[in-house]
Order: sequence, then structure tokens, then C-alpha cells
Amino acid sequence: MLWFVGLGISGSKSIPVEALEVLSKADIVYLEQFTSPIGKSDMLKIKKMTNGEFKQGKRWLVEDGNEILKYAKTKKVVLLSYGDPYIATTHIELRTRAIQEKIKTYSIHASSSLTSMIGECGLHFYKVGRIATIMSEMKSLTTPYYVIYKNIIEGNHTVLLLEYNQDKDYFMDPKDALIGLIETEKGQKRNVIDLSTHVIVASRVGFKDQSIISGKISSLKKIDFGKPPHTIIITGRLHFTESDALKILGRCIDEPQDNSEKTKKISIQMMKKYVPMVRDALEEITPYYKDQKEFKVILENAELYIQDAEKFLEDGQDEVAVLSIGYADGLVDALRLAKGLEPKM
Amino acid sequence: MLWFVGLGISGSKSIPVEALEVLSKADIVYLEQFTSPIGKSDMLKIKKMTNGEFKQGKRWLVEDGNEILKYAKTKKVVLLSYGDPYIATTHIELRTRAIQEKIKTYSIHASSSLTSMIGECGLHFYKVGRIATIMSEMKSLTTPYYVIYKNIIEGNHTVLLLEYNQDKDYFMDPKDALIGLIETEKGQKRNVIDLSTHVIVASRVGFKDQSIISGKISSLKKIDFGKPPHTIIITGRLHFTESDALKILGRCIDEPQDNSEKTKKISIQMMKKYVPMVRDALEEITPYYKDQKEFKVILENAELYIQDAEKFLEDGQDEVAVLSIGYADGLVDALRLAKGLEPKM
Repeated sequence: MLWFVGLGISGSKSIPVEALEVLSKADIVYLEQFTSPIGKSDMLKIKKMTNGEFKQGKRWLVEDGNEILKYAKTKKVVLLSYGDPYIATTHIELRTRAIQEKIKTYSIHASSSLTSMIGECGLHFYKVGRIATIMSEMKSLTTPYYVIYKNIIEGNHTVLLLEYNQDKDYFMDPKDALIGLIETEKGQKRNVIDLSTHVIVASRVGFKDQSIISGKISSLKKIDFGKPPHTIIITGRLHFTESDALKILGRCIDEPQDNSEKTKKISIQMMKKYVPMVRDALEEITPYYKDQKEFKVILENAELYIQDAEKFLEDGQDEVAVLSIGYADGLVDALRLAKGLEPKM
Repeated sequence: MLWFVGLGISGSKSIPVEALEVLSKADIVYLEQFTSPIGKSDMLKIKKMTNGEFKQGKRWLVEDGNEILKYAKTKKVVLLSYGDPYIATTHIELRTRAIQEKIKTYSIHASSSLTSMIGECGLHFYKVGRIATIMSEMKSLTTPYYVIYKNIIEGNHTVLLLEYNQDKDYFMDPKDALIGLIETEKGQKRNVIDLSTHVIVASRVGFKDQSIISGKISSLKKIDFGKPPHTIIITGRLHFTESDALKILGRCIDEPQDNSEKTKKISIQMMKKYVPMVRDALEEITPYYKDQKEFKVILENAELYIQDAEKFLEDGQDEVAVLSIGYADGLVDALRLAKGLEPKM
């Protein structure tokens, strides 16, 4: 028999009522701590809730799973973990294996920092996009960078989990994660993040010394966020009730702002560049063809497609807008090339 | 003093340990039931945990908030709600108002169906995109439709909450939501959803009679999902461990499949249409210019830009691909127009 039990976000206090009996009757309780650190005093309190064997569930032990599954065939075994048990995919896989080996499984869900933190910051949960994890290895930052990019152009918020390594007692400093993202911006250049981006750092959510600090990255660079766990939220477009709540529920060093303003979609960035460029090129080439009737229709079409491109962009039909401005550019450049002028693409 | 307490997803059993004392010492406990229905026997069990006044917290009462805030100024007041307290933005706003009125607030988080359900289905939480709500009013379906579209083209899963109206004792049937989405597809035509789309319906998550049923919409149309609450998940790209887990943890009527396969990005749909079209148009016009040297460079450029467009698409630079094929089309059409042929845009 194998129980997957969530501790919730506040240590021994946040355990669901129904888990108390399960913990006290279990033959073996594994406390998994590799997803988030658990303090010593909390660990002792949790141990007191158990009567059977109390063991550490290190990452390799849970990932390997053989010991846990072996015992679960004949004993009541509990795998206890921070937050909700199935945020860690390792636990889902272990449950799947257990069922395949005909071991009866049970789940007790608990509060997760992923949901709690959003409310603690005053943000609306339905505006949260895909989450991402920041690892200290620099090259791995392009994935979270593009997760933020895709969220932010839709106005969504991005939750960034930070690397935690239990064996090395290492929890990534939020400042290092932000610096890494700014470095990534230099290479990717999508205007996703810079020193003026407004960011929330939520630390120790659910504990007495919880702190929610937000501000421009330039301001946060000077802050000591204290002990882990920390999470970063890159906000997208903020509803006014979200800005108000953020200011009241946390400490805002700078006024919250709409980060999605500066991160325009690639298509919008392109249109900004190409519409005036094609207009200028068209104006320049027009006099060359003033006596050639057969080319007049091309000049007219070019002007119409520039106008269409602008209209499509207004309607939110970004792809058609880009296609149209590309087409207008092609019409104009054909006329330029035929007269030996440089093309403008 | 105002406490926001989450019940968790399993009724009285899932209340966090620390909430027991808070409930027993409170002067007034409001049980909010407008976010999800709570059974009568559970309500009685919860009532037994309290010693003060036990009141219903209807939607209007919580949204208005004046009564709760008035009492909270002098008494210990608890607002108890299904799941985690701050998934409902109404509760965040009430907390903000309380703080502004100098009322001390406390939060006890609990398991939320939004996180629990993902694990119960065997899905990876980091692949969940923005959530959406389905209301029975047909015109409101375009918003969730586009949330699904934007998630699915990135391979993300979409959680769809269904309309619940406590006063009318109405909880939307998952089948009606799916039929509504298929109707919306007819108007929007982004290939987001059809009868062959693989969908999960998670019902009564956290309760004894929890059910996870998945399959093609055509199969699910015949299923009676029983009592609410229900949630729909439209899966995106499934990792093989997700498919495996889904089959083991739930009842799969059909083999799980990658729904993102048929929903191509608009840019990809465009490229599919325009690349062969521009190639044909180029081939057709080439003989007309075989003796005019000054136009040869235009023909060459058109061919190069078609090739570039294909390369950009492969690299995931969709917008540049669309710009390039539009440009190539413009070059070719200028040559066609000059010879009195119909343009191909």
C-alpha cells in the first residue's frame, strides 16, 4: 500500500486533517525533501506524527523507486513531500509503476506554492501562463526566456521556479536568475526583459517570514531576499485590481507596470520597421515609371497592400499583415531592381 | 480579524491541520459555496468543527463584503471556501479591502483542484498553459477557444473550468461545453477542436467517486459523467510518460493522441498554401522574360526568397518565413502585372 501525501506549503501545520491518521498508522514514512528544503524543527514535528519507521527520501531513492515499491508490496508506506505530491513528475511516475505492480495507491493533496503564491501576490490565477524552471547553467536559460516571451506577448504572468539541489544545499539566488535572463536577452533580443522590467520575488510562501517583494530588476539587484525557497514571477499585463493588491499585500519598491508594453510580438516589431521602409522605397521609385503605363498598376497595388497590412495589424491578424507588407515590398523591389537600384528587403 | 481558509478539494477531510483551531475559535464562520458545490453531509461535518455562528456565504454577500468586513472589525471571522481561497479573485479583493480598513488578515491555503487534477490525470504541471472558463452563453466561447488555440500550438494543455451557478443549482455538463466549442470551431476555423480531439473529463476530483475519463469527443458524447464538479482538460502534446500515466490512472476510451498535430500555427498554414503557389507563378512567368537581362535578377531573387522562407520556417522563425514568401510573391507578381497577367496574391 503506497500513499502519496502532500505536506502543503507551511510545513507540519499545513498537512491535511485526513493525513494525520495515515501518517500515524504507516509502517514506513519517507520524507522527500529534494523538491524544496524543509526546516529541521518542522522535520522533527513531522517525525512526531509518525509511529513507524521515518526515513529520508533522497532524489535517487525516489527516482529509482525500487526500495519504496518493494516495501509497499507488504507494508503501509507513505511518501511525504512538500506542497502537492504530484507537481513533481517523479511522484506521478512512481505511482504509475506502483499500480502496474498491483500495489494499491492513495493520494492526499495539499496546498501547493504554485497556486498559493499567486493569491499571496494578489494576482489573478487565470492570467498565469506556462511555468518554467531556471537552472544555473547559462545555456539552459533560452527555454525559460522563450516561455516568458510567449506568455508576456499574451499579457500572461510567468512563474519561474529556481534550481534547488538538496545534496549540495544549493538554492539559486533570485538575483542570479534575473541576471542570467538579462544576459540571455542580449543574445535573443526579443525585448523580453531588461533592468526596468517589474518582477516579483516571493520568498518562503506559507511560512511566518513570508516575503513578497516587487520592483524593477535594477532595484531588486540590491535586495537580500533571505532564506529559500524563492520564486520569481514576471508579470504580464496587470489588471488594476492586481496592481492594487500587489501594493497592499507585498512590498513594492517601484510602482507596478505593464511589462507586455515593451515586448511587442515579432510581427509588430517587423511592421514597425517595414511599413515606413516600403513607403519610402515606393516614393523613391515612382518617378522612374511615370511614363510607363504597364507599371502603374504595380505602384498602385504596392500602396494598397501597405494600407492593407496596417489594417490587418489593427484587426489582430498579424500573420496576414506580415504577408501583405512582404508582398508590397516585393512589388516595389521588383521595380527597383529593374532600374538597377538596390532592393530594400 | 479576518481569516481566509481553504477547505481543500475533499471536503472536511482536506482541511489543513492549522485550520482546525481557527475554525473552533472563530466567532463567525462563513462557508462560501459559489465557486464549487459542497455536499450536505460535508457541510454538517464542517459545521461541527465550528463553535461560533455558522453562516452561508452567498456570492452577493462575499462580493459586497460589507457585512463580513463590519464583523471582522471586532470579531474573529472566517471565510471558508472550496479548494484554495485565492483562486477566486473575489476573495483577493475582499482581503485587500480588509487590509485597507485596517483589519488584520490571515490566510490558510489548501489543496486546489487546479493542481491536484493535473497530477490525478498523470499530466506534467509545467506543460499546463493559461486556464479558461466555459460559460453556457454561446458568444462567450470565442475567448476560451482562442486560449485553447494559443496553448495547443505551443503543445500546452488547457484546463477548462465550467460554469457553476449556486443559486440556480446549475453546473454545466461537460458534453455541452464540448459541443459549444465544436460550434465555435465552425465559425473560427483554426482547426483547434473537432470530434476526433482527445479530451479528459475529470469529475469530483478529491472525492471517493472521483472519475477521470478520456477519449475522443465523439466517444465522450455518449458518457454520463455523473454529479459535478467537472473539469475538462484539452491536452496538447503528450510526453509518453503522460500518455502512459493517463491510461493507468484513468479510463481511456480511446488511445491518447497529440492534439497539437492538426492545429498548425496560422503562419504554417499560410506557408503550406503560398510556397507551391508562388513557385508555380514563378515558373509560369519565367519564359516571358528570357530575353530581358534586367529582369533576370528579379527571377533569381524570387527563387532565393522562396528557399529562404522554407528555411526560416524550419528554424521556427515563422514571421520571417511569412515575410519572405510574401516578398517573393510580390517580386513574381510585379513581373506578371507588367505582362498583363493576373497577380497570384
